[in-house]
Amino acid sequence: MRAFLFLLSFLLVAQILPAQDDSLMIRKIADEILQNSKAYENLRVLTKQIGGRLAGSPGMVKAEAWGAKTMKESGAANTWLQECMVPHWVRGGKDEASAEYDNGKKIKKTLDIVALGNSIGTGPKGLKAQVVEVKSFADLEEKKDQVKGKIVFYNYKFNPNFVKTFNAYSDAVKYRGQGPSQAARYGAVGVIVRSMSHSTDNNPHTGSTRYDSAYPKLPAVAIGLKDADELSTLLKTKPVSVSLKTNGHFLPDTIGHNVIGELKGSTYPDEIITIGGHLDSWDNCEGAHDDGTGCVQTMEILRSLVALGYQPKRTIRFVLFANEENGLRGGTKYAAEAKAKNEKHVFALESDAGGFTPRGFGFTVSDAQFQKILSWKPLLEPYGASDLTRDGGGADIGPLNRTFGTPVAELNPDSQRYFDIHHSRNDVFENVNKRELELGAVNMAALIYLVDKYGL
Amino acid sequence: MRAFLFLLSFLLVAQILPAQDDSLMIRKIADEILQNSKAYENLRVLTKQIGGRLAGSPGMVKAEAWGAKTMKESGAANTWLQECMVPHWVRGGKDEASAEYDNGKKIKKTLDIVALGNSIGTGPKGLKAQVVEVKSFADLEEKKDQVKGKIVFYNYKFNPNFVKTFNAYSDAVKYRGQGPSQAARYGAVGVIVRSMSHSTDNNPHTGSTRYDSAYPKLPAVAIGLKDADELSTLLKTKPVSVSLKTNGHFLPDTIGHNVIGELKGSTYPDEIITIGGHLDSWDNCEGAHDDGTGCVQTMEILRSLVALGYQPKRTIRFVLFANEENGLRGGTKYAAEAKAKNEKHVFALESDAGGFTPRGFGFTVSDAQFQKILSWKPLLEPYGASDLTRDGGGADIGPLNRTFGTPVAELNPDSQRYFDIHHSRNDVFENVNKRELELGAVNMAALIYLVDKYGL
Repeated sequence: MRAFLFLLSFLLVAQILPAQDDSLMIRKIADEILQNSKAYENLRVLTKQIGGRLAGSPGMVKAEAWGAKTMKESGAANTWLQECMVPHWVRGGKDEASAEYDNGKKIKKTLDIVALGNSIGTGPKGLKAQVVEVKSFADLEEKKDQVKGKIVFYNYKFNPNFVKTFNAYSDAVKYRGQGPSQAARYGAVGVIVRSMSHSTDNNPHTGSTRYDSAYPKLPAVAIGLKDADELSTLLKTKPVSVSLKTNGHFLPDTIGHNVIGELKGSTYPDEIITIGGHLDSWDNCEGAHDDGTGCVQTMEILRSLVALGYQPKRTIRFVLFANEENGLRGGTKYAAEAKAKNEKHVFALESDAGGFTPRGFGFTVSDAQFQKILSWKPLLEPYGASDLTRDGGGADIGPLNRTFGTPVAELNPDSQRYFDIHHSRNDVFENVNKRELELGAVNMAALIYLVDKYGL
Repeated sequence: MRAFLFLLSFLLVAQILPAQDDSLMIRKIADEILQNSKAYENLRVLTKQIGGRLAGSPGMVKAEAWGAKTMKESGAANTWLQECMVPHWVRGGKDEASAEYDNGKKIKKTLDIVALGNSIGTGPKGLKAQVVEVKSFADLEEKKDQVKGKIVFYNYKFNPNFVKTFNAYSDAVKYRGQGPSQAARYGAVGVIVRSMSHSTDNNPHTGSTRYDSAYPKLPAVAIGLKDADELSTLLKTKPVSVSLKTNGHFLPDTIGHNVIGELKGSTYPDEIITIGGHLDSWDNCEGAHDDGTGCVQTMEILRSLVALGYQPKRTIRFVLFANEENGLRGGTKYAAEAKAKNEKHVFALESDAGGFTPRGFGFTVSDAQFQKILSWKPLLEPYGASDLTRDGGGADIGPLNRTFGTPVAELNPDSQRYFDIHHSRNDVFENVNKRELELGAVNMAALIYLVDKYGL
């Protein structure tokens, strides 16, 4: 009996003590970040001194140099640039649009637009055509005989009933991605897409479109919500013509880089954990939430672990990925080189959903791995990321998952404000909250600490 | 066995069907609010057309008229004003301050200050004295022989290690509340308090102070964080004098009103459920998050229930309370009249922690009541308010709880941004997000629906 009690107490202590240790260690990480974080100041420099940094742009080059320097300053034992070819789309000039209609006398109204990423331009003379509004692809099918020679206006509303706004985005983004080619199929000459946003302003939101090679490429723009509503109201009673002038085009692919920092593992140096965000951004904004915050959180985790003298068991890589927005070449290259070098990637975590208050993590992992992760929930709860779900991973680490089956995860911050600013001129430093940004880093660091210590 | 299975299936259905009904009803409420809410537009009118509305001010009078009108428009069956006497503190003029020190030559620097609510003014000639910085009340004790004739500067930092910022506020607010009298005790002539905020700007934050009648009343102001840090740095090397001019004083108590709307219960009309926020705000801001959002959420719940044709079983009262900020006379009067009329108050819910994304509710209820509430958690989770805790209730409904033992609750929104703007000139409409505001109303409406249907 005494031996049994001894064994029992030993087992209990073995169960409880590590949890207490972990709780204390995570509290230390949190205090370090909440007191001494460099994330906000790093973000200020990235957004205000560099700004937009689309693949191939001068901003990209500056951002890579800044990233390598900041990675070293954050305490990386090794820092290097991993070269990859990136697409080089340029806006090529100012996007311009106006709507014309007859209201007794001719009225001409400027529209606030932004060309979709990867779209072709109208040419210097621009394009003018009548507008046909469609509410959906099904609606386009019904109106397919009316769109020849016209500009198709996809006025699909970002659905407010989805509580998590990323679900509204998944629901609506097909009109930006496939809309131009679907309209081209029926002879349209241009496309206007209602911005994917709940915002109360009129800023247009860009993002990649993807042409289907079976159809002609059409100039395509996004329009702000107020303009979209006004255009729709006008179209109920009268024909409206829209003039578009856009100048987008591709230059030859150029050289970009993933920026990588590393802390070598002490016990399992061959097992690699990756944390990252993407360094590129659209050109019409500062790329603050998308994804400056993911980059500075990544380096803040590095800084805090080094500041605390933490010696990881596994090798941890901190990666600022190139070209997420319009090509994913950085993430693709990272996985390809890992495969070529036969690296062992045991976990990857991305932050690319904004620097807002963390609510949880989404995981693409096995059942057993998820059970293990769920056992850590009490350790994460005090810091906010308690909603642990089985979905997601993040674009840049997707190739790792597809190549190796690496378990992947993403930080899920509160999503209400994200699509107010996403890919619009409002995605600026001023819209990032210092503490929300830092709490994201705290929760990510806690998860990385647990994966490093216990494996998955 | 068959009878047993029948009974089992009956029990299962009895368990599941209401939950399904509730889930559907809450989804309907959410859709109604997320699609058709008037909360954001109502808030715009309150903040932009009325603005600050401290008890006794012209803004208070306008806000009460607006509240009664909006309550009717939102569908209240009965609307009335409940009279109460309110204190009438006025700022009385512009708060001014400057710091002077000798840096080889004399330097004079303007400080951004705001007089604390309920504080006395310096008189038209102002007050000038050397500053003694203290970090805490313990530090004041150590320096008690140095503060006679001086201005005491409470430079207690809002603690970043508290993940929930209301805990940092509870920790720090004593310096605003008790600081002036504690300094007066040792002969100080004025007080400067570091603002209770994590903000990255320099805006000063006001709020009530409470004089202890045992000591002289001192003029007292709050200072922005950048000025506080700079003043502290200066004081490390040289004496600094500060000139203060404030003009605060009390006018005689005047008449204010709680604005009350009601939906009569169909089954238990005598059982009253109260939902509310407070209509008053500080005078140095628009009172958007504090507590315009609580007011418009309250009326949005009313509007949505009426729009859906919901017939409550119990009587639901929608209350815009008077004078929360510097007297609590509205909440006190509401409970006193309830007692005088021998009303039966079965539940009360307040929203007074900002219009940010809802994270949960805090309850002051019995064990049995809390277990019942916990059983509703799966119904609230899809809308975000899943963190159900046993603390809190809200200032205005506190008197109900103390008078009748009424179970009370408060909405707990995400707290990270609240103290950036709380009681400062930044508490304006532009800092409220439409969807976050609406989701607060959704979760409150869901909880009210459940309490109305099942009781507590």
